[in-house]
Amino acid sequence: MNKEKALEIVRGHLTEHRYIHTCGVMETSIELAHRYGADEKKAETAAIFHDYAKFRDKQEMKAIIEEENLSGELLLYNSELWHAPVGALLVEREVGIEDGEILNAIRFHTSGKEGMTILDKVIYLADYIEPNRGFPGVEEVRELAKESLDAALIKALQNTMTFLMKKNQAIYPDTFRFYNELILNQRR
Amino acid sequence: MNKEKALEIVRGHLTEHRYIHTCGVMETSIELAHRYGADEKKAETAAIFHDYAKFRDKQEMKAIIEEENLSGELLLYNSELWHAPVGALLVEREVGIEDGEILNAIRFHTSGKEGMTILDKVIYLADYIEPNRGFPGVEEVRELAKESLDAALIKALQNTMTFLMKKNQAIYPDTFRFYNELILNQRR
Repeated sequence: MNKEKALEIVRGHLTEHRYIHTCGVMETSIELAHRYGADEKKAETAAIFHDYAKFRDKQEMKAIIEEENLSGELLLYNSELWHAPVGALLVEREVGIEDGEILNAIRFHTSGKEGMTILDKVIYLADYIEPNRGFPGVEEVRELAKESLDAALIKALQNTMTFLMKKNQAIYPDTFRFYNELILNQRR
Repeated sequence: MNKEKALEIVRGHLTEHRYIHTCGVMETSIELAHRYGADEKKAETAAIFHDYAKFRDKQEMKAIIEEENLSGELLLYNSELWHAPVGALLVEREVGIEDGEILNAIRFHTSGKEGMTILDKVIYLADYIEPNRGFPGVEEVRELAKESLDAALIKALQNTMTFLMKKNQAIYPDTFRFYNELILNQRR
């Protein structure tokens, strides 16, 4: 699918603010894909559609998670996580994208998980550091992203998990496993 | 086993500093057991022996973990965790304590895990807040411990996991699961 058509489709599903964020993720993803050796065209498509389901009704997302058995434990955790696996499913079903690598990058872009591909990592990190993001610590992650994909992801995950703990929230197990895997790999 | 005999045995395995810590854990454990309804005598014994293996040789601990299949993943993580399960085993084998509740409280006192008993939680928390501890945040946990065992544990775990992340260290999965369980139970 060409970029203009993809952007036109996704625009109808997003607020203006979220569309601007999506364009930022798209540009950053292409840069990171180029730097770290992922497919730039797949990165572009995954980035454009990564938040496709962001504004779906919660009850609709819950029903999809249950019907499709997306994950038994997902519903116990923050509903902010739901749009990623639901998005992967709807992008396939409604937009017709069938590339498994693109769909996985959408699926794991919020939770992370063990065994992520370079493309998965690129989308995860681009979502965190795209130029419109302004939360505390993002500049440090942007700097790390120039040198090491994994070092930048470790810092982003530390920031995210610390933020969740400060709010007395649970941490999704896949997020925690993603962090541990990156740390344990670093030592090898 | 009476308290004096137990203290005499354990003293031979500890430095003076660690023996003083152990006496602090013992006193705090009895208080917490009284407050939250665990067996005070078992709390006393578990506390006295909780660091029994703290100064065992790392290679000896590693060999025990491998021979006894204590946990496949334990050796991937910080060796500071090893003395707890190894201690439970040696306290049974060398001291002759056979009470499974006491041995479990020793076994889980550093990592924590899902499904801890009140006694397990009492030893875990006493180890964190005993009067000789002086690390950042301990006073807040001491205050919480007057009102809620689980709220104090949540704060202690948040401090511990944040500390590990600041040092770029992995977090042992049982520790993370213990935290998530406490948070998710709190909402019920």
